[in-house]
Amino acid sequence: MWIETKTEMEETSRSRASFSRRVLDGVMLCTGDMEHLDKHIQDMSFVLQLPVWGLRGVARVILANNPVSGALILAALYWDSPWQGLLGTLGVLASTLTAVIIGQDSADVAGGLHGFNGMLVSLLMGVFSSAGDWYWWLLLPVILGSATCVFLSSGLTTFLNHWDLPAAVFPFNIIIVLYLLCTGTNNPYFPHNPAIPPGVLKPNDTDLIAVEVIRGIPLGVGQIYATGALGPSLLILGAIVLYSPLLCVHAVLGSAVGTLAGLSMAVRHDSLYSGLSGFNGALGCMTVGGLFFTFSWRTNLFAIASAFLSAYSDIALSNMLGTVGLPACSWAATLTATLMLLLTGSLAAYRIPIGQAKAPECNLRSRSQWKAGNTEERESTDV
Amino acid sequence: MWIETKTEMEETSRSRASFSRRVLDGVMLCTGDMEHLDKHIQDMSFVLQLPVWGLRGVARVILANNPVSGALILAALYWDSPWQGLLGTLGVLASTLTAVIIGQDSADVAGGLHGFNGMLVSLLMGVFSSAGDWYWWLLLPVILGSATCVFLSSGLTTFLNHWDLPAAVFPFNIIIVLYLLCTGTNNPYFPHNPAIPPGVLKPNDTDLIAVEVIRGIPLGVGQIYATGALGPSLLILGAIVLYSPLLCVHAVLGSAVGTLAGLSMAVRHDSLYSGLSGFNGALGCMTVGGLFFTFSWRTNLFAIASAFLSAYSDIALSNMLGTVGLPACSWAATLTATLMLLLTGSLAAYRIPIGQAKAPECNLRSRSQWKAGNTEERESTDV
Amino acid sequence: MWIETKTEMEETSRSRASFSRRVLDGVMLCTGDMEHLDKHIQDMSFVLQLPVWGLRGVARVILANNPVSGALILAALYWDSPWQGLLGTLGVLASTLTAVIIGQDSADVAGGLHGFNGMLVSLLMGVFSSAGDWYWWLLLPVILGSATCVFLSSGLTTFLNHWDLPAAVFPFNIIIVLYLLCTGTNNPYFPHNPAIPPGVLKPNDTDLIAVEVIRGIPLGVGQIYATGALGPSLLILGAIVLYSPLLCVHAVLGSAVGTLAGLSMAVRHDSLYSGLSGFNGALGCMTVGGLFFTFSWRTNLFAIASAFLSAYSDIALSNMLGTVGLPACSWAATLTATLMLLLTGSLAAYRIPIGQAKAPECNLRSRSQWKAGNTEERESTDV
Repeated sequence: MWIETKTEMEETSRSRASFSRRVLDGVMLCTGDMEHLDKHIQDMSFVLQLPVWGLRGVARVILANNPVSGALILAALYWDSPWQGLLGTLGVLASTLTAVIIGQDSADVAGGLHGFNGMLVSLLMGVFSSAGDWYWWLLLPVILGSATCVFLSSGLTTFLNHWDLPAAVFPFNIIIVLYLLCTGTNNPYFPHNPAIPPGVLKPNDTDLIAVEVIRGIPLGVGQIYATGALGPSLLILGAIVLYSPLLCVHAVLGSAVGTLAGLSMAVRHDSLYSGLSGFNGALGCMTVGGLFFTFSWRTNLFAIASAFLSAYSDIALSNMLGTVGLPACSWAATLTATLMLLLTGSLAAYRIPIGQAKAPECNLRSRSQWKAGNTEERESTDV
Repeated sequence: MWIETKTEMEETSRSRASFSRRVLDGVMLCTGDMEHLDKHIQDMSFVLQLPVWGLRGVARVILANNPVSGALILAALYWDSPWQGLLGTLGVLASTLTAVIIGQDSADVAGGLHGFNGMLVSLLMGVFSSAGDWYWWLLLPVILGSATCVFLSSGLTTFLNHWDLPAAVFPFNIIIVLYLLCTGTNNPYFPHNPAIPPGVLKPNDTDLIAVEVIRGIPLGVGQIYATGALGPSLLILGAIVLYSPLLCVHAVLGSAVGTLAGLSMAVRHDSLYSGLSGFNGALGCMTVGGLFFTFSWRTNLFAIASAFLSAYSDIALSNMLGTVGLPACSWAATLTATLMLLLTGSLAAYRIPIGQAKAPECNLRSRSQWKAGNTEERESTDV
Repeated sequence: MWIETKTEMEETSRSRASFSRRVLDGVMLCTGDMEHLDKHIQDMSFVLQLPVWGLRGVARVILANNPVSGALILAALYWDSPWQGLLGTLGVLASTLTAVIIGQDSADVAGGLHGFNGMLVSLLMGVFSSAGDWYWWLLLPVILGSATCVFLSSGLTTFLNHWDLPAAVFPFNIIIVLYLLCTGTNNPYFPHNPAIPPGVLKPNDTDLIAVEVIRGIPLGVGQIYATGALGPSLLILGAIVLYSPLLCVHAVLGSAVGTLAGLSMAVRHDSLYSGLSGFNGALGCMTVGGLFFTFSWRTNLFAIASAFLSAYSDIALSNMLGTVGLPACSWAATLTATLMLLLTGSLAAYRIPIGQAKAPECNLRSRSQWKAGNTEERESTDV
């Protein structure tokens, strides 16, 4: 009996261990770029592949390439506002389908590279619309705008390819600005609220509330998806952790830097509280810190510099575009990231070619392998 | 007698047939790119060659490369307003001569590639001037502005050459915007009217008149040359038919698409009636449908997409530039056309290298020959 | 005695001649690019090299590459306003040090190519600040702004390298516009004066004073360093003469052309008197006349055309940016110079590759040598 009990206990603990190991394995399978999934689904029908492509597209907005992260983010959007979730879903599907129809590179489509711009356009159209939720006519510009993103994305990629630069979120930024300019604030069919520049200070402004400012830091990550609620923002942060903890650290760091930049320029308090000051910093920091450059303490310093530059440029561009009632969207972060990718000198040594950029952790590993390989090769050539 | 009469009749009918055949042959000689003319005039003196280069330049505005079309268009401009005709003539001559003087490629000059930007600048300077017709001082900026177009055209061509893109009407768009900014609305020497953005709706707006809207479609083609009258617009359409019927179909189609886009965005009625809503659509449609891409049903769909994108972008840019009293000119169509030329995927398969782009009908023929040649070649290499 | 006296006199005259010759030799050593200095200092410590790099950077603003010219210009700035001199010194040091830290090409750093943008940013921040002189908080944006210039300079160089174009003063123009947009006119920490567009005419405007207008021509050269006083402007002109008399002629010529352009567009009298109308013309003229193109009568005509284009574009851009209270800085001249460098045709034949551009006199010599070498080479290949 005693022996049996012991073995039972052993088995239980072993099965527990194996269960937790299996859970961990399962979670581990959902981290990084999940390339193994592509092999599983490549023989499936188009209808089953499309959701995966779409979810990858959802995650690509925060530079992640992971369908599970995408699903978590989409859940966060539906949690915040079902209407916004619907618009986002529609946008990512419309642009992915358009890419399939106009014959874009299938690897790009499968990687979600044609989905994220459409999604952002849809979300921002929803946020700026002053016609309220469930205004069904909005679906028309949402679908058309998302589809147009694919054209811009394809054209810009050809243009920027000369410098090995990605089209990034340039298409989104262009289309949303054109849409808002096209409709104007008092359009009879598609009215929208004008953007308020961050430099406008009310005369009898109250004191800053420190807690609210700190609360703005995670909100800054949520604002990448135009979400101003804490819960969904934290869920989005969770989705980033799943893809890459290193990327998540940079997202929070960048958002904090952005808030700091906002404080130093005395922007509107609303802008700090809502996280709008932080999201460009977050994006600028994420691009440099790990994604397109191998992580190191040097890259980290450049990432912080990039976050500051993004944040200040965002304030500048918001003030400028705000004079005609337009938002600066993520122009600042996109331009700064492009600049960083063009940089020569010590940062360029860490540059990863766009086609090979993966999760930061993966980049680190492949770089050390590549270095080892290089050394071996050199040795073999020496002999 | 009888026999004679018969032979006479036969001869008359034969001569009639031969006459009509000869007329048809004559007309046929005036269609397409009229390359045979270049051989005839290449040994003539400069003074005789210049008008042909200029007329090709006039037609190049609507992407045609045909001096007879150019002459018809110039006649339409003189019909509408002799002052505008004079300005246009002066502009095309000034820029063509400048190109000769600063040593631009002679084939480009002979093809009218340095004339059309100067012409457009001159026409628009005349249209926006608030000093009235026959204000002779205007000839000074007209000549200088046209001459400057050649510098921009040459510089931009070098820049865009990397992607096999044409400078198109970018020089015109830049120069006219700079001129209007430079002089301002209440300049003592060169006053001009500010442009009214299409988004401005009067409070007590009357109902739309359907006939006027439809009338705006052919006017849209005329507005490419800043002509708002129906007769000259139809003559311009005739000039396009002479060059290429396919191009004419796309011009009208594009203008209709532009008007539709204008309706969907509830632009000012004036903008629809005058054809200003249509001309960017027309230009966007013409570029893709046949000129830089071999004609096919796919290209046709892309041409319509291009027309919509041009038209909506035009409304957006007009609203933006209108806040500082500037017109959007053909920025929208030029940018859209450039984007379309950069596109990868199924459209890129139909792309014709810029140096080889001819009349759409000619492109179709040369493509089939080229394909046949390719197949033969491949076969011969196989053997 | 007599013999002795004679020999004494001879010696005296000889020593006088040799003294003046030695002075002349000494001055001659300080002209042109002073490449011999680099060999002298290359083994010295970093602390001794840095000032030379910095002074080269100071002179690079007016396209000169000469530390003695730089020292004279810096003296002119301290003469005009010690505070501005301090800001300039700080700016050039901050950006040069940043370039060293982020590992930019050492030859570029030593040539002062990373200093001049930072210096201009600092000077303009000082000029536009409405907080008065010796407002120490301003040093913070001055240092950060100057450091950021290096990032932009490095990134833009990679981008523009495809066309063998220099980053020129694009970084300065971008950073200063971003800074002014970022802070806004009534910022609590860094307030600044808005720029007044040149097109704004007061209703009861007095007559132009010819002497003041002519005085504006040398001031136009001073305005390149944001200096509005005559003495320092003349000292700056002297510094240009030291580097290259040919460049100085073009500077004055360009400033005169700019003033002429301003007169023809009836700009504000202040703009003419202060030299603000002239400095873009001066920059545009200097770039083409001798620096990036071998000097000849043809290049000279192009230089004048470039000056006119720069000046008119400056008025246009100033009017546009002035609507949001921004200055046009040297956008016009930089864009025009870039355009000229892209030009094909007869100007391109005189183009000097950027890496080989030196003082105009030196360019002339090296071209004739190069031509002679080419002929020899051709002959030798013939044989």
